[in-house]
Amino acid sequence: MGPPMRQFAITVAYDGTNFGGWQIQTNAISVQQCLQEAIEHATSEVVCINGSGRTDSGVHALGQVASFALSGWKAPPERLVPALNRHLPRTIVVRQCREVVLGFDPIRNAKRKRYRYTIRNARVPDPLQYSFQWWYPRRLEVDAMQQATTYLTGTHDFKAFETLGSPRKTSVRTVYDLSIGSQQHEDGCDIRIEIEADGFLYNMVRNIAGALCEVGVGRFGPRWIKGVLESKERQSTSQTAPARGLCLMQVQYPESLFIDCASKSDSPD
Amino acid sequence: MGPPMRQFAITVAYDGTNFGGWQIQTNAISVQQCLQEAIEHATSEVVCINGSGRTDSGVHALGQVASFALSGWKAPPERLVPALNRHLPRTIVVRQCREVVLGFDPIRNAKRKRYRYTIRNARVPDPLQYSFQWWYPRRLEVDAMQQATTYLTGTHDFKAFETLGSPRKTSVRTVYDLSIGSQQHEDGCDIRIEIEADGFLYNMVRNIAGALCEVGVGRFGPRWIKGVLESKERQSTSQTAPARGLCLMQVQYPESLFIDCASKSDSPD
Repeated sequence: MGPPMRQFAITVAYDGTNFGGWQIQTNAISVQQCLQEAIEHATSEVVCINGSGRTDSGVHALGQVASFALSGWKAPPERLVPALNRHLPRTIVVRQCREVVLGFDPIRNAKRKRYRYTIRNARVPDPLQYSFQWWYPRRLEVDAMQQATTYLTGTHDFKAFETLGSPRKTSVRTVYDLSIGSQQHEDGCDIRIEIEADGFLYNMVRNIAGALCEVGVGRFGPRWIKGVLESKERQSTSQTAPARGLCLMQVQYPESLFIDCASKSDSPD
Repeated sequence: MGPPMRQFAITVAYDGTNFGGWQIQTNAISVQQCLQEAIEHATSEVVCINGSGRTDSGVHALGQVASFALSGWKAPPERLVPALNRHLPRTIVVRQCREVVLGFDPIRNAKRKRYRYTIRNARVPDPLQYSFQWWYPRRLEVDAMQQATTYLTGTHDFKAFETLGSPRKTSVRTVYDLSIGSQQHEDGCDIRIEIEADGFLYNMVRNIAGALCEVGVGRFGPRWIKGVLESKERQSTSQTAPARGLCLMQVQYPESLFIDCASKSDSPD
């Protein structure tokens, strides 16, 4: 018998701009591959890591969660944080590491996920935030967008906001929170759409962000969103917002799946 | 006689990461060169543009001001904004353009300049802000840093905070405002040092930021800054904060130097 396996869940932040996305692929560098290589360098163990979901190329994360098992790691889980960061490019940072029960599944065990979509509504783009915002030069009415969000919270069939290509058993999801914040600045306004749900269909946040902008710019009234939702069909009239404005903020799991509870690794020394 | 010259002042934002700095040089791409080429493409006139100051490689700007003269531009100055942005890389954005009196000198006519220095005080860096923050993992006491700033406001000889290499007639400057803001987040704290003065010596903000961190980390008490200032000598005990955390926010000029006053190009349509 070999040494007992221990399973870990890491919280990962990354700038998705120059990656081919989360998932390992042949023709581009992926976040998953970089993490697996860092784990191999740090522990001399070859692992397969599983993420809470695949982010597309250009999509960012502050709170992606991924899991893997090691047989030889004897130190506390939080010691993996600096050990992995030492072997990662500066576009990927492990923020936290906790031990989880064996068999922990970062996709199936996820209770809630939260995404943020950021729009720069200004006459000119911000070159310092180019990779992290959708620059939308035409004026958006945030009040109208906020009214439209009321039709999307709760449990609905979100088929109309799913891009085809990744079939799911059901397209019914529960949106717990969908809020829009805006901040005025000299050139215009930054708009943040935050959306928390029990799960997301392919491109769901980007399709909702695109549809909310159709309302914000006055092309349709807020109630148009209700019609789109009830149609259960992807509308040709609605656009998909670009990847760069999207960021995976948080994935929540039942606390009972975590083994260590004393991890106080969140604040600086 | 040729057509009458008109002079313009543009407000420019740029991500300084991949530039060799503001000033034209032989072995790296400069912001100045990109702007001159954009002006030539947009107007078919070859110009020399002057900035309010040279930012080093890696230093950013949201409010750099630069000036140039054209003989053939008949349209309102604000029409130069989209015309130039069309020919600029996405790391440089012209935010505003106003007509100024002939002979306007963006260095000598500047009344005040404002810089921001951003520090990430957290156990791990933020990969989405890597190029725009100094990651400082050891815990900083913001209160102590704030106390230290009180010795630096007002009119002083700032020779002790000047890096040699760019001699000035006098090293006396007036700091009108020096404030420190901090924002807690899950991983630690973001610290913003904002400093407004009638002018700055070479590396003055980066040297002040480095010295404030020596106080913040507890290596010296707040009054140590007073001694450094009064020594009028660069201290080997004090570090220069890295370029990437620095951003030129604003340059102020007497309103009488601007010819157009009707420019309302700041908000989206």
